[in-house]
Amino acid sequence: MKLEKFLNPKYIAVIGASSNKNKVGRKVFDNALGASNCSVFPINNKEKKIAGHKAYGEIGGLPINDWKNLLVVFAIPAKHVLTELKKCTKLGVKNIIIISAGFKEASTKGLEMEKEIMELAFKENINVLGPNCLGFINNDKKLNVSFSNFNIGDNGIKKKNNIAFLSQSGAIGSAVLDWVSNKNIGLSYFVSLGNKAVLNENDFLEFLERDSKTDLVILYLEEISQGERFLEIATRFSKEKPVAILKSGRTDLGEKMTMSHTGSMAGSYDVVLTAFRRAGIIVLDDVNQLFNLMRLIKSPAKNLYGDLAIVSNAGGPSVLAVDKLSENNTSLAVFSKKTKEDLKKFLPIFCSIQNPLDILGDACPERYEKAIDLALSDKKVSSLLIILTPQSMTNSGEVARAICKIKDRYKNKMIVTSFLGGPEVAEGKKLLAKHLIPNFDTVEEAVDALSGYLLYLKNRTNIKKYNLTGVGKKNFSSFKILDYLDGFKLLKDHGIKTVPCKELKMESLGKIKYPITIKFTGPDFVHKTDEKAIFLNIENASQAKKVLQEFKKMSLKTNFSDRNIAVYQPMEKRKMELIIGLKRDSNFGPILLLGLGGIYTEVYKDIVLEIGDLNKKKAFEMIKRLKVYPILKGVRGEKGLSVEKLADAILALSKISKKYNDITEMEINPLFIDEEKVLAVDVRVIKGL
Amino acid sequence: MKLEKFLNPKYIAVIGASSNKNKVGRKVFDNALGASNCSVFPINNKEKKIAGHKAYGEIGGLPINDWKNLLVVFAIPAKHVLTELKKCTKLGVKNIIIISAGFKEASTKGLEMEKEIMELAFKENINVLGPNCLGFINNDKKLNVSFSNFNIGDNGIKKKNNIAFLSQSGAIGSAVLDWVSNKNIGLSYFVSLGNKAVLNENDFLEFLERDSKTDLVILYLEEISQGERFLEIATRFSKEKPVAILKSGRTDLGEKMTMSHTGSMAGSYDVVLTAFRRAGIIVLDDVNQLFNLMRLIKSPAKNLYGDLAIVSNAGGPSVLAVDKLSENNTSLAVFSKKTKEDLKKFLPIFCSIQNPLDILGDACPERYEKAIDLALSDKKVSSLLIILTPQSMTNSGEVARAICKIKDRYKNKMIVTSFLGGPEVAEGKKLLAKHLIPNFDTVEEAVDALSGYLLYLKNRTNIKKYNLTGVGKKNFSSFKILDYLDGFKLLKDHGIKTVPCKELKMESLGKIKYPITIKFTGPDFVHKTDEKAIFLNIENASQAKKVLQEFKKMSLKTNFSDRNIAVYQPMEKRKMELIIGLKRDSNFGPILLLGLGGIYTEVYKDIVLEIGDLNKKKAFEMIKRLKVYPILKGVRGEKGLSVEKLADAILALSKISKKYNDITEMEINPLFIDEEKVLAVDVRVIKGL
Repeated sequence: MKLEKFLNPKYIAVIGASSNKNKVGRKVFDNALGASNCSVFPINNKEKKIAGHKAYGEIGGLPINDWKNLLVVFAIPAKHVLTELKKCTKLGVKNIIIISAGFKEASTKGLEMEKEIMELAFKENINVLGPNCLGFINNDKKLNVSFSNFNIGDNGIKKKNNIAFLSQSGAIGSAVLDWVSNKNIGLSYFVSLGNKAVLNENDFLEFLERDSKTDLVILYLEEISQGERFLEIATRFSKEKPVAILKSGRTDLGEKMTMSHTGSMAGSYDVVLTAFRRAGIIVLDDVNQLFNLMRLIKSPAKNLYGDLAIVSNAGGPSVLAVDKLSENNTSLAVFSKKTKEDLKKFLPIFCSIQNPLDILGDACPERYEKAIDLALSDKKVSSLLIILTPQSMTNSGEVARAICKIKDRYKNKMIVTSFLGGPEVAEGKKLLAKHLIPNFDTVEEAVDALSGYLLYLKNRTNIKKYNLTGVGKKNFSSFKILDYLDGFKLLKDHGIKTVPCKELKMESLGKIKYPITIKFTGPDFVHKTDEKAIFLNIENASQAKKVLQEFKKMSLKTNFSDRNIAVYQPMEKRKMELIIGLKRDSNFGPILLLGLGGIYTEVYKDIVLEIGDLNKKKAFEMIKRLKVYPILKGVRGEKGLSVEKLADAILALSKISKKYNDITEMEINPLFIDEEKVLAVDVRVIKGL
Repeated sequence: MKLEKFLNPKYIAVIGASSNKNKVGRKVFDNALGASNCSVFPINNKEKKIAGHKAYGEIGGLPINDWKNLLVVFAIPAKHVLTELKKCTKLGVKNIIIISAGFKEASTKGLEMEKEIMELAFKENINVLGPNCLGFINNDKKLNVSFSNFNIGDNGIKKKNNIAFLSQSGAIGSAVLDWVSNKNIGLSYFVSLGNKAVLNENDFLEFLERDSKTDLVILYLEEISQGERFLEIATRFSKEKPVAILKSGRTDLGEKMTMSHTGSMAGSYDVVLTAFRRAGIIVLDDVNQLFNLMRLIKSPAKNLYGDLAIVSNAGGPSVLAVDKLSENNTSLAVFSKKTKEDLKKFLPIFCSIQNPLDILGDACPERYEKAIDLALSDKKVSSLLIILTPQSMTNSGEVARAICKIKDRYKNKMIVTSFLGGPEVAEGKKLLAKHLIPNFDTVEEAVDALSGYLLYLKNRTNIKKYNLTGVGKKNFSSFKILDYLDGFKLLKDHGIKTVPCKELKMESLGKIKYPITIKFTGPDFVHKTDEKAIFLNIENASQAKKVLQEFKKMSLKTNFSDRNIAVYQPMEKRKMELIIGLKRDSNFGPILLLGLGGIYTEVYKDIVLEIGDLNKKKAFEMIKRLKVYPILKGVRGEKGLSVEKLADAILALSKISKKYNDITEMEINPLFIDEEKVLAVDVRVIKGL
């Protein structure tokens, strides 16, 4: 859907505008009045005038005929919304905000009303924001169509319009807006997404992708809408502009993937993080990181290459910065030979010429200036953190002035400061703020904010566009486990080597080569280990006979499925046990899983996930992300195990997921791996019916 | 050492005070002049008057004879310090601050000068703070004996004197002081520890333990001095008052414990963290957490029991708070039946009566007041986080007023707020600050600050006083590996079951029961796996002969130690392989290690450490901290492994460490464990010579 007209209306009508200043509708009306180049009409069938403006009793009575350029805001009780929406539809209105609450978030009845609105909107191709939202702000147009008190005119935001902030929570949205409003932060758009009945984050991302006023999008989300569409848009988007997301409900394991082993180890946030990684999203862990990123990004340099340098007048804070960098896996730049020589020329002899560069406690503004200049001129340096602690020789104002002076010569580098302290560094901090240089009260916050952004910059060239799997999603009413031997056949058909596996029959016990493993399989034996349905090291026919007799005895029970069978396999030696699996996520499509198998699986949770559209390179990347990878690769001069064949097996699962869209879940556990091959020893395949 | 007189001098002399206002000595002099009930003398052999005060050419010329009550501050070049110190010593001066830099931090010559100062100070029993420090502040006495600009008179600190802040870094110290100075934070003492040549954190902790003005001690340290003494004092101290430490150099693995496997897995910060855990220290991860703790603790309730409750007018921030709580392993209180019933009586019907308690977006101040009152009255609630987001019905000022009103009725509970936003919540925030109720800009920061403190409160009753091991530390010039069979004997003598192990000799090959494992042991085979000195599954005498011939061949090489021998052991079955070990840390004494053995040791690093003074309870706690514990305990109805015998083995190592103070390191790797026993299969013992 195109949102240009939605976000830039010529006319706005507020249904529910009122003379009562405490009403939400009135607040929206008052806010909207401030817009430039936009006529705003109050709609109220009981009042004649509202705040000095003629009120209209009906939407149809408005003195316009250009309905496509009208944005209608609903601030009326939920039960009246549908009726009014239908009127709008008939007039040809295409852009709607439903502020009203009382829909799916409130009750079953609300949910039903919301569904009706959705159906109507999709049928008539109408943009609906909400319900249960604050509205939106288009800051460049000075357009506040929300009931937030955010004052467009009063803050420094006009200078820069570069961050779009979308929030699913109205409360978080209004808190962040309020926080932003007395900071020097550039906001292009604010959108309160509400219940996301029709428009969701993806629609706005598609719009913002082509919006020249937006350099960065920050989202607060409680859940991702249309996961595969999100992946498609976000992988394209974040190659050009950064997208940062704070997702709440991270530790809620309630939505765990279910049924099989594979699933129970990967919580839904793990899947979301996998999608974020795939899409090059900057992942925010808390609101503080959200604030810090907002403060960091004044006007992000487009072509930033290289690593971080630090210049400081004290050792302590540098150590803290390095600790944090190391915890965040962010690298420090290594100064070039020339930079080092130039630094050596003017710095005191005690200075150790390295990064972080400690220019000592007696550093005067001139020393800061020269050191900063040289660090920034180094090609390996993309960004600079300048640390200043109160010292008798240090005039924070003068140092800040020097930074402001140098700044303009290095427009394609990022400069961040950490002037530590209060009154003694106040002058410098004031000056930095005036020149839009972000200052952080602690070096750790500076590093934290930088790390996520620098990581994004480093990875973004590798972001590969996500291709929709093209497999229509189905809603299955029930599921069945594929027959055991059919599961093995499926693997074999896709090139995954399997352990020989046959049904165990009384008459053939004498012809088998022992030792063997016997397994009871089928619908009554889903968790074989738990149900004692695995018999290792069966050494001869008489032992095998006993086991088989046990199975026969079980089969006499009522409800014992005739799809249960006893099978046998030769005993295989293992070098290492792994698990590979696949789970069709209702949001992000097929998700592949690779992990350590055997008894340690659940305690060490050495598991990696990947989005299903993978190639061999991505399969190798999965393997390398395993903690156990050093052993797979071969330690202490030992020959490594066959990661090549392992990558092939993962790819085969990906292919299976594309070929059979009724396979909702499958797991090979264990998958033995040795120097030459991988070998599937057990498999479970679940199909939707 | 007693520091009462040091911190409360009757007279102060500043050697190096000067008419030049830029000199450090002058700054210290000016600051000291502000003290009440204390005479301050400038000492300068070139000037007659300094800032209107008569200057004295020599310390001996001062018009006093009560030298024990004099504090002398040195602000002169390092090279003159010793001479002046000797003069002071002769006069009977006992309290000295050396501000001057240029000692061990600067050069070898400086290190030597510092050593001479140390020797003199210890010989004459003189308190020396520094060198290379800012000095100290005794806020209650309005005494600033430092060159920090911290203005005692100007800030709100006088109201409360409860946090003592000790900093090893002068820069961090001055930054924190400066930051504190316009906040409503109570500071009892600030001490800049500098090089800690004589006085260190332990001396000040001993003083602060009995200081009624100090409720909490926060330290910034680069290293812990006298680890065992620290443990002794801190375990006693933190049972009464909290101690929080930010240690820098956390990720520096440079000081790794060395030589054996045991060591290489435990970095020095791991050992420090183990000591902190043992002592009930609140561990700070960064300066932000330090600031947040300072803001949290206005006047900590002494007897705080129970868990955290949250009251909020919005769902989003509550979810974020719960995410953070869960990440920090902090529990939420469960409201009592009565509290729930009382809440239900007045809250809107849509409210879900649980913790966090969402009192909805339309919550008026009265609803806040009642909900807060009921939550605080619940016995299971020790602390309350009140979240407020800007909403049209919410008047932040009124809510703040309600909180301030209730507060005094719950003096033994902790109240923290998170009023989210800027201008819209400014009135409320101002009021909270005035009433010393800590407010955090994000809920995550509030939770982060609370978590560490609540965890401390929960654990502090379990803090056991550390008993010095009583084993004099020795400096060994070299080390030797104990002969292999002697190592096994040592274990056997201390009740640890060992696998039978004998020297392998040609003449007895025929009499051995096969299969066996053969190992080459001794000084040339320290890392048996790397050096291919282990031969598993030797099935008969001829295979054994081949291996032994190989050993004989190696023994012909020059420099092949005659302490090397080939040994054999029966092949033992394993359920699980563990490692236990012990390392005598130069700072904290014997450290015990328990971890997963076998091939996964290095990848999963499932290792726990403990301070050497352990008992069986602590040994069990170590076992329970292992990630692999669920398997040891027994999963899926399987019988568990013998954790009882494992605890005994750990205790045995602890006993060995006390009995033989020349054993610097030992490791049993692998230690097999099954349902009935543990079995040492390999051992290495290192002794100091």
